[in-house]
Amino acid sequence: MSRVKIAVIGAGSIAWSSKIIHDLLHTPTLFGSEVVLMDIDQGRLRLVEGFAKRYASELGADIKFIATTDRREAIRDADFVVNTAMFGGHSYYEKMREVSERHGYYRGVNSTEWNMVSDYHTIWGYYQFKLALEVARDVEELAPEAWLLQLANPVFELTTLISRETRVKVIGLCHGHLGYKEIARALGYDPEKVEFEAIGFNHVIWLTKLTYQGRDLYPLIDEWVERRASDYWERWRLTQRDPFDIQLSPAAVDMYKRYGLFPVGDTVRGGTWMYHWDLRTKQRWYGPTGGPDSEVGWMLYLARHEWYTGLLERVASDPRLSVSSFFPPARTDESLIPIISSIANDQPAVYQVNIPNMGSIDGLPDNVAVEVPAEVSGKGVRRTLGLKLPGKILKAVLWPRMMRMEMALTAFLEGGRQILIDWLMLDPRTKSEKQAEEAWEAVLSLPENQEMARHYRG
Amino acid sequence: MSRVKIAVIGAGSIAWSSKIIHDLLHTPTLFGSEVVLMDIDQGRLRLVEGFAKRYASELGADIKFIATTDRREAIRDADFVVNTAMFGGHSYYEKMREVSERHGYYRGVNSTEWNMVSDYHTIWGYYQFKLALEVARDVEELAPEAWLLQLANPVFELTTLISRETRVKVIGLCHGHLGYKEIARALGYDPEKVEFEAIGFNHVIWLTKLTYQGRDLYPLIDEWVERRASDYWERWRLTQRDPFDIQLSPAAVDMYKRYGLFPVGDTVRGGTWMYHWDLRTKQRWYGPTGGPDSEVGWMLYLARHEWYTGLLERVASDPRLSVSSFFPPARTDESLIPIISSIANDQPAVYQVNIPNMGSIDGLPDNVAVEVPAEVSGKGVRRTLGLKLPGKILKAVLWPRMMRMEMALTAFLEGGRQILIDWLMLDPRTKSEKQAEEAWEAVLSLPENQEMARHYRG
Repeated sequence: MSRVKIAVIGAGSIAWSSKIIHDLLHTPTLFGSEVVLMDIDQGRLRLVEGFAKRYASELGADIKFIATTDRREAIRDADFVVNTAMFGGHSYYEKMREVSERHGYYRGVNSTEWNMVSDYHTIWGYYQFKLALEVARDVEELAPEAWLLQLANPVFELTTLISRETRVKVIGLCHGHLGYKEIARALGYDPEKVEFEAIGFNHVIWLTKLTYQGRDLYPLIDEWVERRASDYWERWRLTQRDPFDIQLSPAAVDMYKRYGLFPVGDTVRGGTWMYHWDLRTKQRWYGPTGGPDSEVGWMLYLARHEWYTGLLERVASDPRLSVSSFFPPARTDESLIPIISSIANDQPAVYQVNIPNMGSIDGLPDNVAVEVPAEVSGKGVRRTLGLKLPGKILKAVLWPRMMRMEMALTAFLEGGRQILIDWLMLDPRTKSEKQAEEAWEAVLSLPENQEMARHYRG
Repeated sequence: MSRVKIAVIGAGSIAWSSKIIHDLLHTPTLFGSEVVLMDIDQGRLRLVEGFAKRYASELGADIKFIATTDRREAIRDADFVVNTAMFGGHSYYEKMREVSERHGYYRGVNSTEWNMVSDYHTIWGYYQFKLALEVARDVEELAPEAWLLQLANPVFELTTLISRETRVKVIGLCHGHLGYKEIARALGYDPEKVEFEAIGFNHVIWLTKLTYQGRDLYPLIDEWVERRASDYWERWRLTQRDPFDIQLSPAAVDMYKRYGLFPVGDTVRGGTWMYHWDLRTKQRWYGPTGGPDSEVGWMLYLARHEWYTGLLERVASDPRLSVSSFFPPARTDESLIPIISSIANDQPAVYQVNIPNMGSIDGLPDNVAVEVPAEVSGKGVRRTLGLKLPGKILKAVLWPRMMRMEMALTAFLEGGRQILIDWLMLDPRTKSEKQAEEAWEAVLSLPENQEMARHYRG
């Protein structure tokens, strides 16, 4: 049992932080620790603080919670800094999407091949990049030995950015890789009993291994595709309620056929524009909701998110309710708290992490954040070196995605208009450079984007 | 004076080889050497052989010429292998262009951002890649100590490919960087007296230095752009005869304004689709011919090339004509023969070469061929390390170009249809995946492409 200081940046979002708090309170190896909840929204912060303290006392868990709106105080001398902060509300990004669409960019200028995810903000993520880099710089200054656990998206871009621009020990985390469980279940296996490996970039990971007691399950995937997929899809088209229910969608199977490995988790949401031209196309590949990143699916997601947040807020604000009755009795399958425990207590275990490549995956530059399994302990992160991906995935999927990341980072770091324009000049939705220029002009003219517009001037 | 064996592969193209022969015959430091002219076309080969021998005897130059159709014999024990061989005639590529255009791909599926050059065959260059790699493998086997000088395009792709797939010492050469001379002349300077540096990838190089007696000439470029460009363009639009007369075109100046450095030589022919949507767009940026890569300019180029080849063939086949009267009295400004002399005689000099990066330009992978100045001598190539390019050029120009190179190489090395499709899924000319699939189907259905179609099957 190791007593550590954990700072949670952006803790006011109760949907996120309740999960972290729940997991912490179910992790006796971290009892005695201090958690500083930080947010700029004092009202939400108080709510989460109250929730955390009440839940801790219900469970009799020995975790001390402190709340502050002072980011630097939260970070100072922390052992772990968890960054969950998303700049702006969803409505800000929906506005940018709307003005983009008026200029012919369906789902926004931010959507590109292999990043169609509606809240994975890259080229238009100026404020989010700035915020994440400021947090990392605070860590560098005020808690130079701390681990920065980057949960807020875009994990690929931000982990790469932070690892290049600061000396901070950063790990990016995402739960998308858990999509392997759905694959295992479809094959009739208990997900907890299969072994898997899925590697690539965050949101672009590919199943390089799926075994049960040493036996390769890929032949069973092939059999499923050949014999069972069409029946499955027939039912699924009639019953899909959750737009995220796409791990076994026609899109996933088509990607598998094209690239030779099965795409895992949010990877399925990507692909080139061939899966995403319009709602009709998305529905063909992702079911009646069009997947989470169609106008239908995204609306469903935002509504659900709002409903869930409202529910948690009611739980948090009504002391007569038992918190624990709203949560499962054990830890969720998020890896954040187990990772902190592995480091704090020097208990080595393997986790899915986003870290600078440094030889982990062959054929990718060292200074790009890859998503791979790695052993994490008190000594830090130990990479497996020389993992391999097929040339098609490396060069026709990861390379284009990496190019977008490099463009987004350079635009953010250096400013100016040109990379924004070139971003759209490589886009099949673009018909003329005038269209590209006008779309950006419209995005940058939003009142919220004044500072961003100065950064990207001329 | 060093006696060496030089093999010229693809010597049957008299337009190319006459230049090499001319330069050799004006290079006494290589006298005593043996040159093996190799081509698969015996008729053309005989013509070039006759030309070479007659020209040598006219000049009294001590170079021994041998002709053979046996590539392996030509290469065996050579000290230098010069590869100028282009697979297929221009008509083969024009056919692929034509079927591409029928499917909505103006100027062919091979044209992409930063490679609009009509005979720089990348994604559809299957046979050209194969031929160049076969030559390199012959060198590896039969003349392992030889230098391979890769003159045939695409120099960027082929130099990278050969340096990755073989152990051969390869240097890619192109004369595009000499475009700096036109810039110097426009500023009123003798090109021979200015110093320049232009770096990047072959056909994508940017002027990082232009000085006269240590004085930076960039301010004069700015002055030219501001005060003289519009007058210049007015005259130029009325008088442009040569489609290659574009070094000071509106396209070049626009690229300079957008990216911060002046583009040199064939770089101007590149850019995103904003300069290339159609003939009208090309004419706006590249003058009335639309530049060399419009349907007009390319026809002019091919006609001129045919005329010049015909002229040389007449000179070669009529022994009453004096060869030397058709050529200037001294060496051309091609660097091939000087480089061979520098290596053979260990006389260090700086040349513009294409070599694996290995730290030459910051921010690019080691195993990608960059075009940079480097010192060449009997000891080999000595790179300058740590050359810098602005982030915009690195990430919005070179990175997309590098992605295309990686895709073309992987498609060639691994086969299969997917990378071909994805190539077009990243293209603003693509409206649907059906269009992309049908365009490739049409290209691969050409009778000439049977072998290529097998390689790229499904």
